[in-house]
Amino acid sequence: MDTALVTRADFPHLVDHTTRWKDNDVYGHMNNVVHYELFDSTVNQWLIQRGLLNVTASTAIGVVAESGCRYLAELKYPGMVTAGLRVARLGNSSIRYELALFAEGEEKAAAVGHFVHVYVDAQTRKPCPIPTDTRAAASSLMV
Amino acid sequence: MDTALVTRADFPHLVDHTTRWKDNDVYGHMNNVVHYELFDSTVNQWLIQRGLLNVTASTAIGVVAESGCRYLAELKYPGMVTAGLRVARLGNSSIRYELALFAEGEEKAAAVGHFVHVYVDAQTRKPCPIPTDTRAAASSLMV
Amino acid sequence: MDTALVTRADFPHLVDHTTRWKDNDVYGHMNNVVHYELFDSTVNQWLIQRGLLNVTASTAIGVVAESGCRYLAELKYPGMVTAGLRVARLGNSSIRYELALFAEGEEKAAAVGHFVHVYVDAQTRKPCPIPTDTRAAASSLMV
Amino acid sequence: MDTALVTRADFPHLVDHTTRWKDNDVYGHMNNVVHYELFDSTVNQWLIQRGLLNVTASTAIGVVAESGCRYLAELKYPGMVTAGLRVARLGNSSIRYELALFAEGEEKAAAVGHFVHVYVDAQTRKPCPIPTDTRAAASSLMV
Repeated sequence: MDTALVTRADFPHLVDHTTRWKDNDVYGHMNNVVHYELFDSTVNQWLIQRGLLNVTASTAIGVVAESGCRYLAELKYPGMVTAGLRVARLGNSSIRYELALFAEGEEKAAAVGHFVHVYVDAQTRKPCPIPTDTRAAASSLMV
Repeated sequence: MDTALVTRADFPHLVDHTTRWKDNDVYGHMNNVVHYELFDSTVNQWLIQRGLLNVTASTAIGVVAESGCRYLAELKYPGMVTAGLRVARLGNSSIRYELALFAEGEEKAAAVGHFVHVYVDAQTRKPCPIPTDTRAAASSLMV
Repeated sequence: MDTALVTRADFPHLVDHTTRWKDNDVYGHMNNVVHYELFDSTVNQWLIQRGLLNVTASTAIGVVAESGCRYLAELKYPGMVTAGLRVARLGNSSIRYELALFAEGEEKAAAVGHFVHVYVDAQTRKPCPIPTDTRAAASSLMV
Repeated sequence: MDTALVTRADFPHLVDHTTRWKDNDVYGHMNNVVHYELFDSTVNQWLIQRGLLNVTASTAIGVVAESGCRYLAELKYPGMVTAGLRVARLGNSSIRYELALFAEGEEKAAAVGHFVHVYVDAQTRKPCPIPTDTRAAASSLMV
């Protein structure tokens, strides 16, 4: 995606995150690491709240194989950050999510990233197919 | 305070915090450290949103001299956590805040803690009196 | 303990921790929350490396019931921080650890705290006696 | 780089990081976010210890424009993680660092990533040329 043009309208799922004092680093803006905390939290909250992930019971879990972020504008504590989530690619055992973070009241993304889950057996941690219900739900996030 | 009896009604100021995937540790509950992230964020957000703290411009800032927490029940991601804030003691240069964390829909506190700010000169970091406007606002949180 | 007089010599176990960019908050010093990350890491590393805790196999685990810290001097990234660990009290199901953090090359503590583990059954999370081997090891940290 | 073949020998600068209890998430491995904490800390520690960055005094600072990571094997607390650092590209105002993380005693990388600093004026946050001394030092990390 052309990161400069990404807006809230590009995402079928949006969720709000509160920020924390410790999110700001010594430069007074949200540290680059925190964006990944919000990516991770957005994807897994979406899965858990739809009953697609139960961390103690699921036999297949998504582990992160790759992630990345482009930082376009500063985000800051305090202030709500909204995360947008969509699915860019559905493989046999992997899902590529695309995410963006938006400052309160801003239409244009402050950061744009991706996050690839590879499904593995919860015990052996060997790759396995994406569970059927997760595949169906992820399809609904494709744009 | 008798921690077992602490409820939302004990706090004049309540604020919601979203939780993050990384808040849960390997035991599947909110790690004991995260409670302090929420304490710190609650106090400073209250100060910043009332215009009592500007981290780049304030000549007096509150630095933490002491903190503590009692953990009464598990908190978990995902799920909102509400923090309660009140002031227990106002000294010449220090404010003792009392805080509690509540799980969504729970009246009884899952954790109860305190957080002592000592005011210091932002440059020299030597103790100084609590600024007048901060003192007045903190008084309004005394119970 | 009289926090102003705490030195490295007060602790039978000392361990080094590296610091991280994100440990410093906007005030340019180690955020008050990070001290608890180091407390938690110090205690559990001591347990794991002695074979006293296996997070997936242990039938009894220590969960944190209470923690606290007094901040005496600033700590900063980059720079190693040394943590001191001792046991102050051994109950039937709880261990009260006392900890301190030392800046590189400093004899006097920059922070002094405590950390109470209550042993619980890993499945039911109900209190249980401290395992025998853990009790013996903890005794060796009493001063 | 072909991530599967990355070894310690590919990096002119290596630095050890201790891990923390909270680095492990509910899956019992280092959470994907922590890798970025170590990237950030590795780059800035290298800059600070060479006198190339003083967060309160430097007139030009590097802010992160892009980052990314591929996760090849699990890392875990407790246990030291070694980070490798090299420079892949030096632009007029940006430096592209490549990093890898290695488990204790392992030659092959557990994670490989990149981290792009864009130099900006510390006050205005507008892009500016890389300072001369930083450019010279960064050149020495090119391979």
